[in-house]
Amino acid sequence: MIESIQNSNIKQLTHILAKNAARRASGVFVVEGGQENRRALQFGFVPVKFFICEKFFTGNVPQGAEIHSISDKVYEKVAYRGTTEGIIGIYETKNTDLNQFTPSPNSSVIVIEGVEKPGNLGAILRSAEAFAIDAVIVTDCKTDFYNPNVIRSSVGCLFGMNIFAASNATVADFLTKNSFCIFTTFINENAKTIENIDFRGRCALVFGTEHSGLSEFWQSQGANFVIPMGGTIDSLNLGSAVAIACYELARQRVAGRLKNYSRAK
Amino acid sequence: MIESIQNSNIKQLTHILAKNAARRASGVFVVEGGQENRRALQFGFVPVKFFICEKFFTGNVPQGAEIHSISDKVYEKVAYRGTTEGIIGIYETKNTDLNQFTPSPNSSVIVIEGVEKPGNLGAILRSAEAFAIDAVIVTDCKTDFYNPNVIRSSVGCLFGMNIFAASNATVADFLTKNSFCIFTTFINENAKTIENIDFRGRCALVFGTEHSGLSEFWQSQGANFVIPMGGTIDSLNLGSAVAIACYELARQRVAGRLKNYSRAK
Repeated sequence: MIESIQNSNIKQLTHILAKNAARRASGVFVVEGGQENRRALQFGFVPVKFFICEKFFTGNVPQGAEIHSISDKVYEKVAYRGTTEGIIGIYETKNTDLNQFTPSPNSSVIVIEGVEKPGNLGAILRSAEAFAIDAVIVTDCKTDFYNPNVIRSSVGCLFGMNIFAASNATVADFLTKNSFCIFTTFINENAKTIENIDFRGRCALVFGTEHSGLSEFWQSQGANFVIPMGGTIDSLNLGSAVAIACYELARQRVAGRLKNYSRAK
Repeated sequence: MIESIQNSNIKQLTHILAKNAARRASGVFVVEGGQENRRALQFGFVPVKFFICEKFFTGNVPQGAEIHSISDKVYEKVAYRGTTEGIIGIYETKNTDLNQFTPSPNSSVIVIEGVEKPGNLGAILRSAEAFAIDAVIVTDCKTDFYNPNVIRSSVGCLFGMNIFAASNATVADFLTKNSFCIFTTFINENAKTIENIDFRGRCALVFGTEHSGLSEFWQSQGANFVIPMGGTIDSLNLGSAVAIACYELARQRVAGRLKNYSRAK
């Protein structure tokens, strides 16, 4: 049993948890929590090693990777959530290159330009997964999918999603070549309201950053919609706006029978 | 000009920023940022004092309270957002007693049971304000409306809302006496889907905590609805669920003409 945070495996773990650059260079990432690790394995992520704290862990020990038993003191020092669930996994990242994506005939994708806050990206992934959106694509991103805060706030929804990162130009080119209708979100007096957009075909919904909204690049692409509001504030939280758009898309597609449609894999 | 964080006014400021208990005992709270302070004043909050950092501040200096000029070094030490906007206000809290609420004929309210995360409460207030919900009521709350993180994540939407805090029993009693239809959110096979609920009359939408959902107390009140989902995850982020419910309520009420209805004051 590992009882010291000076152990080389624990040092590697804390290093990639603390430093985004070190994590990216290593090609691996960290998953904490029972549900999150189950989802990572369920959706085919390749584990490298697991750290199990027997005091807190109640599930079956996963197969296929090194297992390290760690003391509760070490676990409490390295785990974000302290005393919960007793499992931390290290996994290989997957390729997020857009050319790996083969959209389904009625594919729906969410494009997020330059998202800044990991918590927002995580919440977006959770909504996209919940409403069976085909893929989430981030452009010019200031955070990345394997950031520990993204994984935590997505409650592991990241793992079941098709996720891609690319430049604005690459994404626009991909969407056009694949005959997506592009719908952009920004305030513009000619915009349609969201319930008057037809989301039933192959469509991409594009959202701007929390701070400055959608760039001019995207404003000139496709059609524009807004979510109608009746209060005095002029914008929604980014995660809330994406959740509403996913809901409205799903509502139009299946009129209450959402379980009958599924995501491309 | 105040140039030291040892100044007694700055010490008071940092004390109520750092300690929720000290803030509650003092009857005042802190507002940082240009838009946030404009909204607090617009909606009648009573300012006690302002701290202005001339290096960053570009608006008109507000009237009606003590003004303290502070150096940029002091500002950068006390401000959450570092170098932005150059204004911090201290205001008196308002009474959030539920007996101060007189609902309009078609009043819509959001009830949140025991919300834990200030960021979630702030996002909920922003959605409620954006969709002209009449009031947000929190019960058995583990955070409070005047927490700096709530104000920040609500981008000042807190100030234009009717906000109340009360026990579960008091809220249920108030809703019943005032003829609200109560709609609760939890997973139950007899639940209606949200688009099949009629939200046009006086209605209260009740949501549980992030961690454990709605309590048994509320599960036995009113009718139950769910937001239909098609993915593999079984729940949405609390802020996302509230945003979708506010959107669906507004969509039903005004079918794209939301600007024509307004909130009770």
